[in-house]
Amino acid sequence: MKNIYIIGVGLIGGSFALDFKNLDKNLRVFGIDTNPNHLQEALDLGVIDEKATMDDLNHADLVVLAIPVDKTLEILPEILNKVNDNTVVFDAGSTKFDVCKLVENHPKRRNFLAAHPIAGTEFSGPKAAFKGLYTNKTNIICEVEKTAFKLQEATLQLFKDIGMRIRYMNPEAHDKHIAYVSHLSHISAFMLGKTVMEKEKNERDIFDMAGSGFESTVRLAKSSPEMWTPIFKQNKQNVVETLNEYIQNLQEFKTYIETDNFEAVFNEMKNTNRIKEILKGIN
Amino acid sequence: MKNIYIIGVGLIGGSFALDFKNLDKNLRVFGIDTNPNHLQEALDLGVIDEKATMDDLNHADLVVLAIPVDKTLEILPEILNKVNDNTVVFDAGSTKFDVCKLVENHPKRRNFLAAHPIAGTEFSGPKAAFKGLYTNKTNIICEVEKTAFKLQEATLQLFKDIGMRIRYMNPEAHDKHIAYVSHLSHISAFMLGKTVMEKEKNERDIFDMAGSGFESTVRLAKSSPEMWTPIFKQNKQNVVETLNEYIQNLQEFKTYIETDNFEAVFNEMKNTNRIKEILKGIN
Repeated sequence: MKNIYIIGVGLIGGSFALDFKNLDKNLRVFGIDTNPNHLQEALDLGVIDEKATMDDLNHADLVVLAIPVDKTLEILPEILNKVNDNTVVFDAGSTKFDVCKLVENHPKRRNFLAAHPIAGTEFSGPKAAFKGLYTNKTNIICEVEKTAFKLQEATLQLFKDIGMRIRYMNPEAHDKHIAYVSHLSHISAFMLGKTVMEKEKNERDIFDMAGSGFESTVRLAKSSPEMWTPIFKQNKQNVVETLNEYIQNLQEFKTYIETDNFEAVFNEMKNTNRIKEILKGIN
Repeated sequence: MKNIYIIGVGLIGGSFALDFKNLDKNLRVFGIDTNPNHLQEALDLGVIDEKATMDDLNHADLVVLAIPVDKTLEILPEILNKVNDNTVVFDAGSTKFDVCKLVENHPKRRNFLAAHPIAGTEFSGPKAAFKGLYTNKTNIICEVEKTAFKLQEATLQLFKDIGMRIRYMNPEAHDKHIAYVSHLSHISAFMLGKTVMEKEKNERDIFDMAGSGFESTVRLAKSSPEMWTPIFKQNKQNVVETLNEYIQNLQEFKTYIETDNFEAVFNEMKNTNRIKEILKGIN
C-alpha cells in the first residue's frame, strides 16, 4: 500500500494516519474533510501529507472512513464507486449493522471492510490525533468473509502491525454488545453531567467538591454530540434496551435505599465488585 | 504534634500517615484497626510505626478517624472521652451532618474537627495508601467555629503543609452537594457495571469490546461496599433526591431516542459538553 486516503482527519482518522506513517515512511497520506480548517490543521500538524478531494480516490490503495456514522451511510456507496478494484475501504464507525446492510449488494462490496477500532478519547479533531492510539486495542471486524481475501489479508496485517488485536463478529451481535459496553457508558456519563450541572448552578461548588471519582465517571460527557447522535440513532433499539435495564437497576437500588434495605444495597455493590476482575482483562 | 494515632489504617488513614511522616520524620505514627491483618500489613509496609489500642489514645496529639461512617458514629464519643484537652480528633468521612449532630453537645466538642478530604481511589486497605494522595486536593471542613481555635489552626496548617486547599461548609450543604458530585457518581458506576455484567454473561465479550471509555465510567464500581453502604444510609435523603433527578434525565433522554427526536438528543449532549470547562477547574 502506497497511497492512503483518510476521509475525516479527526481523532480516529488522524491517529490511523500517524500510526500507518510510522510503519512505513514511504506511505503518502492524503486527507479529505468537509471542514477546511480541520484539513489545514491536519496538514500543519503533519497528520496528513497532502490535501485531496473525493475525485482523487481512484489513486487510493487504502481509504479510511472516519466520519460520523450517518455521513458514512451517505458517502460510502459513492466512495466504492470511485475506487479501483484493488483498493480497500474500511470504516471505523461504532455501529455496524446499517453500514453492512447498506452495501450488501454493492458491486464493490468486496472492496469494503467493516471495522470498529475500540479506541478513542473524549477529544476530537486533528489536534486530538496521536501516534499509538491503537496499540494494544481491539479492532472488531464484521462480515470479514465478504471482503476480497487479498484485501482483508493486507488490511488486517496493517492493523496487527500497528499493535491491534483482531476480533470477528457479525454486525447484529456487534451492535448489541457495543450498546452495553460503550453506548450506555456515554449516556450514563452525559446524564450524570447534566444532573450535577442542573443542580449546581454555582460552578464553584462543583469545582471545590468534585474529585477524581466524579471526573472519571463523567469523562465521556465531553464527547462530541456530532459523533454520538447518529450512533444512538442507528443503534436505537439496542440503546433503548440497555437504558431500560440501566434505569430499572437504578430504580431498584433507589428502592433499597428508600426502604432502608441496606443489606441489599451492600450486596448489589459487592456483586458488582466482580467488575474488577473483568477490567483487569482489559488492560 | 508528636504522636499521631490513625484509627483505620486503610487508603485514607494510611495515606495521611505517610504524608504527615513525610513532613516531619520525628512524628510517631500509631495505628489502630479492628482488622489485625490490616494492622500488621500497615506496620510491615511502614505506613505506621507502631500498633496501638484505644486505651493508648490519652497519649495522642492528633487522632485521625478514617473508618466507615457508621463506625465513626459508634466510636467517636468514646474517642473524645479518652483524649486529653490538647488533642485534636478529625474524621475523614464522606457524610458530615450525622457526625456533627452526634457530638454537638459532647463536652469535648472543641477537640473535634469535622473534615472531608476529597481524595481517594477505588482501592482500599493499607496497601492502597500512598504518599501524595492529598496533594492539590480539597479538604472540606464543617463547623470549623466549633473546634478550639488553637487546635483548628494547627490541624489546618498540617493539611496545608501536605498540599491541601481548605474549604468551609456547613454540614447540611456539604451532604447535599457531595451527594451530586460523589455519591451519585458511585451509584451510577455501580449500576452501569451491574447492567453490563448481567447482560454479558460471557465475560470474553466484555473483555474484547470494552475500551477505556467503559473502564473510566465504571471505575468506581470497584469501590468498597463496606465503606459506601453506611454513606448511602447516612445521606439517604439527598442520595434519593439525586437518583430521582438522574433517573428522570435518563428517562427523558430515552424518550427522545424512542421518539426519534435526535435534535433533542444532540442538544442534551451539546449542553452537557460544558462539563469540560468545569472539569478543567478540578485539575
